[in-house]
Amino acid sequence: MKQIVNPSKESWPALCQRPQLELEFLDGAVKNILNRVKKSGDAALLEFALQFDKVKLTDFKVTESEIKSAVAQLDAPLKAAIQTAASNIEKFHAAQKREVIKIETMPGVACWRKSVAIQKVGIYIPGGSAPLFSTVLMLGIPAKLAGCTEVILCTPPSSDGSVNPAILFAADLVGIKKIFKVGGAQAIAALAYGTKSIPSVDKIFGPGNQYVTKAKQIVSQEGVAIDMPAGPSEVLIIADDTADASFVAADLLSQAEHGADSQVVLVSLSETVVTKAKTEVDRQVELLPRKDTAKEALKSSLSVVFNDESKLIDFVNEYAPEHLIINTQNSDAIADQVMNAGSVFLGGYTPESAGDYASGTNHTLPTNGFARAFSGVSLESFMKHITFQKISEQGLKVLGPVVEKMAEAEQLIGHKNSISIRLKKLNSKS
Amino acid sequence: MKQIVNPSKESWPALCQRPQLELEFLDGAVKNILNRVKKSGDAALLEFALQFDKVKLTDFKVTESEIKSAVAQLDAPLKAAIQTAASNIEKFHAAQKREVIKIETMPGVACWRKSVAIQKVGIYIPGGSAPLFSTVLMLGIPAKLAGCTEVILCTPPSSDGSVNPAILFAADLVGIKKIFKVGGAQAIAALAYGTKSIPSVDKIFGPGNQYVTKAKQIVSQEGVAIDMPAGPSEVLIIADDTADASFVAADLLSQAEHGADSQVVLVSLSETVVTKAKTEVDRQVELLPRKDTAKEALKSSLSVVFNDESKLIDFVNEYAPEHLIINTQNSDAIADQVMNAGSVFLGGYTPESAGDYASGTNHTLPTNGFARAFSGVSLESFMKHITFQKISEQGLKVLGPVVEKMAEAEQLIGHKNSISIRLKKLNSKS
Repeated sequence: MKQIVNPSKESWPALCQRPQLELEFLDGAVKNILNRVKKSGDAALLEFALQFDKVKLTDFKVTESEIKSAVAQLDAPLKAAIQTAASNIEKFHAAQKREVIKIETMPGVACWRKSVAIQKVGIYIPGGSAPLFSTVLMLGIPAKLAGCTEVILCTPPSSDGSVNPAILFAADLVGIKKIFKVGGAQAIAALAYGTKSIPSVDKIFGPGNQYVTKAKQIVSQEGVAIDMPAGPSEVLIIADDTADASFVAADLLSQAEHGADSQVVLVSLSETVVTKAKTEVDRQVELLPRKDTAKEALKSSLSVVFNDESKLIDFVNEYAPEHLIINTQNSDAIADQVMNAGSVFLGGYTPESAGDYASGTNHTLPTNGFARAFSGVSLESFMKHITFQKISEQGLKVLGPVVEKMAEAEQLIGHKNSISIRLKKLNSKS
Repeated sequence: MKQIVNPSKESWPALCQRPQLELEFLDGAVKNILNRVKKSGDAALLEFALQFDKVKLTDFKVTESEIKSAVAQLDAPLKAAIQTAASNIEKFHAAQKREVIKIETMPGVACWRKSVAIQKVGIYIPGGSAPLFSTVLMLGIPAKLAGCTEVILCTPPSSDGSVNPAILFAADLVGIKKIFKVGGAQAIAALAYGTKSIPSVDKIFGPGNQYVTKAKQIVSQEGVAIDMPAGPSEVLIIADDTADASFVAADLLSQAEHGADSQVVLVSLSETVVTKAKTEVDRQVELLPRKDTAKEALKSSLSVVFNDESKLIDFVNEYAPEHLIINTQNSDAIADQVMNAGSVFLGGYTPESAGDYASGTNHTLPTNGFARAFSGVSLESFMKHITFQKISEQGLKVLGPVVEKMAEAEQLIGHKNSISIRLKKLNSKS
């Protein structure tokens, strides 16, 4: 970990810089995949399954019996853990429901706003080494609470044509009925354009490798909504001398093990705790199965010591971390000053892992400084708001002349006429 | 207007198709503008002002005295109209404020979600024939209510170096202090990258021509948030025999006058009202100053007659119109079934123009079918949600083992350790 003491404000932008996601070179390859799926549908998907997943599929859809057998074979304590996590996630996201608020902006001018589910949504769950069944909960539960009528899950099959049973159990638990064995950029293409087997959707959610990221970027330019722009996962920890350095180290490492490009930052007013945490990192990293990955991530990681708390907080807001752990005695006071972050963890007994899995908050969060303008996934990510208005005859008599005046000044006489023709009729009536 | 009676469901996707926005050919030209601003900052902006706006500027910032003189010279009834509109817009958007809801998902596991303003936002207001001061209100008011600390407005100058006084009055009214005379793709570049004169922002709002649209598309790929994808404005009207055909025609024309590519659709169960409305359109269009534009838009417009109300509603939801006028006796009942629309206008005395200017709802809305997954601009468009959590020692004792089990199953042992190391300490304490 590179250590910096009291960096000047001019150096902050460079310190807050994440590695650039180099995706341009994938443009041709991914566009080719998208076009083949657009043109040949299921036939293209079968070819890609053979090429990338090394499996000859006859059908993409996971059957009822595959789901039943996954549910039956999964370890009972793991099932119970997933059920507890699901219950917490459901509680937190259900609390986000909003009532319709109807107001009269003027007498006779009623305006309101209603949340309505996005009808068709797609969830992508990557395969590979770690089966991300937790992401099935994080995306499937708000989709169900929102009331999306069609929820499609795509995930790549293993080379024996199966899907990880924990993924199937989690999907079944949250009521997802349509699960397809399709991975990579071709899954994003299927969700965006639809094929004979796989229905197209209005919005696509979920993490993935750089092919998936590039594919989501391209289809989002074509009008399909996506959850948010992607980047490597990251944590920033604020620690003081009351923090247990072994906890700080464990939290840094739980981020570092994600990938060699994970971003790990420790900031403090105390050089002591930083030094202690680093010693602990060096000790603990050796115990990790993914220690090579974690060590790689640590190489580009950063610790910054400040001599002033307000500067420290300004720096954190400029960095805009995806995950922010505030492991200090005054964590509540610091939390009040957080302007830019995805999700914030307060105190010594609130590790990021809690939110990654089971406390109830969502783990799909803005990386790469996007927290300056983006929020994590929530119930609202699966809904849109429609505004409504109803104006009475009396209401239009009051509001109408205002609109006429403004439309005329914007030189839109057709707009003005749509009011004038009504006012004329009202005046002739009275 | 092309008329279709009882189209088969297979033909709906083609009927719902909007003209493709052809922006690819602009790629090179717009990237060149963006790169020049990124590289040369203000110097490039001065050159573009000379080239595109035909004006030699010495400074971009609108001065206090320019604002004062605009406020002084503007017609008093127009000022009053703008003030009334602003007051309605403020009431509607202020009602969207949300309280923090803190819940315990398990004993000792507290989770909450806080709305925080996006710190720095940019508003683009096009120049040209119609000075869109109404858009200044629609974007500036929620920005102020959200509490954005920096609101930057860019708008192109006239060839005499001035800015339309109604735009300056509206900006001053909503408290925007930083107004710059910069237009087109170069304004988007300045807001995205910053120059010596113009600060960079986290999110860019506002309409514009195809250069502006392309520039917003490009910078959004680079991590600057934008309000929503753009497309030509559109209205769909549902009318029955109780509707006044002259009102229906005036509403169709108020959309058609926007641009030759405006989308105008009339649907009904009654061929009679459609025929009457068309006759009225032919009469009223001749009275419009923008009649050539309106006639051009009408060429590609559509009327569809259905023999079944549920089919009619399904079609409307598939079309997902930006503006939906329900001018029928049962407008409330139909409104309940609207799943996809930007903003909905109910009854005979609620023309779209009311919402375009002054009723209080926002007029920045999803076009091109994007209403399937996107919402119009609201208070939330200027905020992001940050989640927080705080877990007590007792809370972690209950939640911790759940996380350990799940992390292990996802093969993320570093995640598990961040829990285990804490539980170990807690167990040694007790």
